[in-house]
Amino acid sequence: MKVVKFGGSSLASGEQLKKVFDIVISDSERKIVVVSAPGKRNFEDIKVTDLLIACAEARLAGDDAMDLLEMVMGRYAEIAKELELEEAVIAEIRDHFISLLHGNQNKPTRFIDALKASGEDNNAKLVAAYFRKQGIDAHYINPQSAGLIVTDEAGYTQVLPESYDQLSKLRDQSGILVFPGFFGYNEAGEVVTFSRSGSDITGSILANGTNADLYENFTDVDAVYSVNPSVVENPKPIKELTYREMRELSYAGFSVFHDEALFPAFRAGIPVQIKNTNNPSAPGTKVVNARENENGPVVGIASDKGFCSIYVRKYLMNREIGFGRKLLQILEDNDVSYEHIPSGIDDTTIILREYRLNKEIETHIVERIMNELQADEVKVEHDLALLMVVGEGMKHNVGTTARASKALANAKVNIEMINQGSSEVSMMFGIKARDEEKAVRALYQEFFSNVVVNV
Amino acid sequence: MKVVKFGGSSLASGEQLKKVFDIVISDSERKIVVVSAPGKRNFEDIKVTDLLIACAEARLAGDDAMDLLEMVMGRYAEIAKELELEEAVIAEIRDHFISLLHGNQNKPTRFIDALKASGEDNNAKLVAAYFRKQGIDAHYINPQSAGLIVTDEAGYTQVLPESYDQLSKLRDQSGILVFPGFFGYNEAGEVVTFSRSGSDITGSILANGTNADLYENFTDVDAVYSVNPSVVENPKPIKELTYREMRELSYAGFSVFHDEALFPAFRAGIPVQIKNTNNPSAPGTKVVNARENENGPVVGIASDKGFCSIYVRKYLMNREIGFGRKLLQILEDNDVSYEHIPSGIDDTTIILREYRLNKEIETHIVERIMNELQADEVKVEHDLALLMVVGEGMKHNVGTTARASKALANAKVNIEMINQGSSEVSMMFGIKARDEEKAVRALYQEFFSNVVVNV
Repeated sequence: MKVVKFGGSSLASGEQLKKVFDIVISDSERKIVVVSAPGKRNFEDIKVTDLLIACAEARLAGDDAMDLLEMVMGRYAEIAKELELEEAVIAEIRDHFISLLHGNQNKPTRFIDALKASGEDNNAKLVAAYFRKQGIDAHYINPQSAGLIVTDEAGYTQVLPESYDQLSKLRDQSGILVFPGFFGYNEAGEVVTFSRSGSDITGSILANGTNADLYENFTDVDAVYSVNPSVVENPKPIKELTYREMRELSYAGFSVFHDEALFPAFRAGIPVQIKNTNNPSAPGTKVVNARENENGPVVGIASDKGFCSIYVRKYLMNREIGFGRKLLQILEDNDVSYEHIPSGIDDTTIILREYRLNKEIETHIVERIMNELQADEVKVEHDLALLMVVGEGMKHNVGTTARASKALANAKVNIEMINQGSSEVSMMFGIKARDEEKAVRALYQEFFSNVVVNV
Repeated sequence: MKVVKFGGSSLASGEQLKKVFDIVISDSERKIVVVSAPGKRNFEDIKVTDLLIACAEARLAGDDAMDLLEMVMGRYAEIAKELELEEAVIAEIRDHFISLLHGNQNKPTRFIDALKASGEDNNAKLVAAYFRKQGIDAHYINPQSAGLIVTDEAGYTQVLPESYDQLSKLRDQSGILVFPGFFGYNEAGEVVTFSRSGSDITGSILANGTNADLYENFTDVDAVYSVNPSVVENPKPIKELTYREMRELSYAGFSVFHDEALFPAFRAGIPVQIKNTNNPSAPGTKVVNARENENGPVVGIASDKGFCSIYVRKYLMNREIGFGRKLLQILEDNDVSYEHIPSGIDDTTIILREYRLNKEIETHIVERIMNELQADEVKVEHDLALLMVVGEGMKHNVGTTARASKALANAKVNIEMINQGSSEVSMMFGIKARDEEKAVRALYQEFFSNVVVNV
């Protein structure tokens, strides 16, 4: 049994829904279908979810917001028309939206969440209706009835562990089950949303709860690529990667995936297949717990800008028990989390995401480090990028560091910082942000040199 | 004006003292002579300081310890005889030792320190007597009269800042001043010793206090070498290195120098010249605050065994504000200081010196990390070595990392860990201890390849 999730672009039009239908019925194992709200049909288009948020905000500001809601309903009506669905289907969706818009605004957060989630909820109803029209036994599943119970945090809710037992019963229901992504219900029975990309989370939770054999995630790219296609032309697709590799790549800017969304599936040992709705015969990318290492040590290269570093020097630092702990305490007191802390003998560098500091916090932290820790020097460097070279195969491959650093040296990229822990699934280089693209190209050329590179 | 310090092997025999005399009088700037106790004359020999410690311990255990004291006094008597010094000189030394041995044992720590320090103290008297016999205006200087006042910690005392003013007056005294190394007096007027290599510290303090132009440190090697001569045959001597380079090299096993000993001199901007008593015409090594970078990026390669690592993995670790701080707190609670903490996304490795853990502490720390921090995995790895590639020139040299890691790869040395902070005066590699010598040779070959290497 498979759980299949379709993203917003796969559901943006009637034409797309036909593809979804063909994909689902082509494999009798595809039983649970998780759907997003209709996404963009083209680059200038607006996602239904964004319209719904605007709608809720306008309503809370005292506007009747009917113009925005008409835009939303227009999207569904257009899809329904393309698919030649009965009037009743779209009438039910319209009633639902309007009753939500005029619902209780006493708790603005809940009000917004209810509207946000209705994009997925109504889309699941529409998709189920279309499947039935095509002669398939298909049912819309309400997350509350199915038992998807979540915590109270709007916009970043978490599934409650007891949900899994309830969700396992979905296996026993007949036909194809169309499940709206992105939200669950709290114990008070109110709608609460997951973070953005929340449909991926719903699919992952359902795969876990129903103990699926596979979680298929249909999106609009053929595969996860070994490097950002906007930096390197026609990069090599990744056929298989481990969950850890996925996480390391996501960390440094791989945006195909909200990697944490996959965690419930991975905890249950369920592999995730990423595929393209618009090209379902492409093999896609499989994310697994463990893989054979066939294609060299490196599976992918990622990079991300927006880092900075706080350099701290103090004579005899490494003799001073508690120095590092006190340093991190100062960050913690300012609610600043850090990424890495490479160190020398008398110095330590804290690497953090730029957005965690503002001028005021920066000055305050620097002062505290100088005054309380009696540092000899504290220096903040901005505009850094981190490069991640990722691959499980690196652990058993003596020369990977040499190849990577040589490639960077040849491209005249100065390495500001290297961080490689004993896990060896990744190697991280800190460089100047201005060198980022040059560095990524050089690394790609080194590790995937059989492919033509756009230098 | 120069402060000149001679180590134990430079003062082990009459023959050696003649060399010391020639060195001192050959340069009229050499005014303050700091002396160690007589050291080893050959490989099997016992240092006077070690005999004196044994003496004190035996005495505290109830023994009369005269046999050991006779061995000590025999060493001085032999030197005095070789140098044809008057009987009175050795008689005074003998009286001093015997009165110390029968001194107050109420404070065992002070008793031991007084005996330990007497090796240097009496040697200073002997050297001054010899210089006078040779017709030179030379004076033994008592550290208490000179104002070298220190804290109470026996074996690792620190100079009190007010000493420097007092010591500056030594400049005004006539003749050559022979000053015993290794100890000062606390405010109660008791002898307290510095750590081993404490004569280096005394010389450094005097250089600072008297604002000397140079602190000359005479030992038994021609220079500091770019790599350990027991691993690579005839390694390249280092002519000039900065204090930071010295510290980084010392950290990972360069034992020529107790680098912290030089700190008082460096704080005052006084360069340190390391020279060989047995070959004073060799240029030696000069330790300076800043140097021209002439000979490539790397000045030296050091390595040290005896490290281990604690690997901690926890899903979403880097989102958890306070995780690193709590981890370090657990170490601190167990009085365990760490060296480095390279990290991945969901994991962190703590590198520490092996001796800081025993089986009991290790188990306790691992349990606390598992239970209190809910880590997914904690793994301790033993038998690691750290390699340090050191050089101020690395900062401006793009390819150093590449060269180093390629050299290691070619030598089939797997890099477990890399740590390079933003200071870039050094690059550190963690490797298996069994690969240490192979790795050092490979790096030496790479960075000093014009020299024949003993592979």
